[in-house]
Amino acid sequence: MTGAPPSPQLFFETANAFQRTEALKTAIELELFTAIAEGKQTAEDIGARCKASARGTRILCDFLVVHGLLTKHANRYALTPDSAVFLDKHSKAYVGGALRFLLLPSAVEGYKHLTEAVRKGGTARDEHSLTPEHPMWVEFARGMAPLMAMPAELLAKLLRAEEGAKWKVLSLAAGHGLYEVTLARHNRNAEVWAVDWANVLEVAKENAAAAAVAGRYHTIPGSAFDVEYGDGYDIALVVNFLHHFDQLTCEALLRRVQASLKPGGRAVIVEFVPNDDRVTPPLAASFSLIMLAGTPAGEAYTFKELQRMLGNSGFRSSELHPLPPTFFNVVIGTK
Amino acid sequence: MTGAPPSPQLFFETANAFQRTEALKTAIELELFTAIAEGKQTAEDIGARCKASARGTRILCDFLVVHGLLTKHANRYALTPDSAVFLDKHSKAYVGGALRFLLLPSAVEGYKHLTEAVRKGGTARDEHSLTPEHPMWVEFARGMAPLMAMPAELLAKLLRAEEGAKWKVLSLAAGHGLYEVTLARHNRNAEVWAVDWANVLEVAKENAAAAAVAGRYHTIPGSAFDVEYGDGYDIALVVNFLHHFDQLTCEALLRRVQASLKPGGRAVIVEFVPNDDRVTPPLAASFSLIMLAGTPAGEAYTFKELQRMLGNSGFRSSELHPLPPTFFNVVIGTK
Repeated sequence: MTGAPPSPQLFFETANAFQRTEALKTAIELELFTAIAEGKQTAEDIGARCKASARGTRILCDFLVVHGLLTKHANRYALTPDSAVFLDKHSKAYVGGALRFLLLPSAVEGYKHLTEAVRKGGTARDEHSLTPEHPMWVEFARGMAPLMAMPAELLAKLLRAEEGAKWKVLSLAAGHGLYEVTLARHNRNAEVWAVDWANVLEVAKENAAAAAVAGRYHTIPGSAFDVEYGDGYDIALVVNFLHHFDQLTCEALLRRVQASLKPGGRAVIVEFVPNDDRVTPPLAASFSLIMLAGTPAGEAYTFKELQRMLGNSGFRSSELHPLPPTFFNVVIGTK
Repeated sequence: MTGAPPSPQLFFETANAFQRTEALKTAIELELFTAIAEGKQTAEDIGARCKASARGTRILCDFLVVHGLLTKHANRYALTPDSAVFLDKHSKAYVGGALRFLLLPSAVEGYKHLTEAVRKGGTARDEHSLTPEHPMWVEFARGMAPLMAMPAELLAKLLRAEEGAKWKVLSLAAGHGLYEVTLARHNRNAEVWAVDWANVLEVAKENAAAAAVAGRYHTIPGSAFDVEYGDGYDIALVVNFLHHFDQLTCEALLRRVQASLKPGGRAVIVEFVPNDDRVTPPLAASFSLIMLAGTPAGEAYTFKELQRMLGNSGFRSSELHPLPPTFFNVVIGTK
């Protein structure tokens, strides 16, 4: 006890936290950050650009200032450095489209049944993220790609793609395909096979074409648990995939991965990896609740757990690499 | 620019902020904080008490630790000092019931149309918080009373209720009635008249009876804009009411209040009062967005604005009193 009087402030903030989500969504819909990037500074000017009332714009902007997404001085609003990079539609790193995936009705719906999910120990919904060909993964592939550009670059660096070793690369649940596309872009001796639902692979192929690596980008449509991968791979990417499953299912998958690798080949797992206490760092530790709401048995695994899964799947060693400043970690298992 | 690399972390946190609201709601529904207050410490024991799976309970508890509502050491969970006071059902100050009001479908619904509200400059819904006899105010009166117990006590102290001056007290939009009930409890020479919708006044009367002041608690059912208040009041309470209206409407109301006061009588306004910059302190400054989503023209007013309204309504002076540690301020206008 510090002697500070008890306060319901955190209760109140938490009860109202959903408003932050809605305010961000509205600001993205109105292109409010883009308007400010274009030089509009007052509520009147921003509102005019966004086809919104000055009053509503002022109240929304003030709210966004309170919550760190804008700044305000003398009734003029400005972008924060992060908002300028990520929330201005004209920015290459614009991530506003990710809201389409993050706030899909199907994702938010899982939270409407969170109490039931906690009781049950897994999603309370019959149709969920593991449903074959679920259209949410097309939204994921389209919306989340910009958020993945930086970790994909950092991963290519970590794996020394630019050294140009002859690589046969497998990518499971490729989604937008950015990770293997980035590897192939940095290493012209890399040849890639990507596994995902056919509808999702269309997006990955677009990204491969845009990066001029389409000729070295092959697709294997279907479930990563069923399709034949082929063999002789140097690298198998397993990016943000394991957290959807329980540990035994992860091991079953990793055994298939192990079998597809050549000796000395590496499984490269990119994940939210909480510390052993499971409550730090905040984003990785919070992530398991999303999986509780949306999958039958998934969650974010600690490095120890991933290490054990890799060991049980026939990998002889595993190592952890943070990818700062992103909130992802890379776990590399070597065959 | 500080040189820190740009990060989409705040974007991600904000996009997912709604999960904090849902997690709190689920924890309250499951009586999770109460279970821990009763001595359950592990996910297994807490889950058993809450009729929930150990796995779901663990993931939810970890999430609540990340967001400051619990602590965790060696896989044992404990309440924070604030959670112990406000989230344990057995605590006198339990505020869990406030979620019923804060997250009423009608309140959350306003946010689903936030973009339209920003465009328009006011709520996009036809039925809203100003609809006569709206049942949300009964939920308010029942659910929010515990949150108001502390500010009501602090207000009674500020007004020196215990000195026992003979007071005729008017309370507009009384709701739960706690403010005037607390004044009457501390000052047995206070006689109270409370205005609100008839359905809401039933709750206030219960609270007056529970505080043994029912004999000095009179009700005036109807709209504060229409009913006759009577006159000769020493004190007129206007608690969390003005923020629902535009400034001219507030002034019309304050003129009625002024007319009902005896010379030297005081209008006692309890409000969320943001600073002149409108972006601090966080809770008061955030509050206007709730009013944008839910009312035609309401918002949280600065002290300067309230001062001007009081001046325009015939009050000769006004003063500001914070009510720490609560997030309310008191503005007193003297006739």
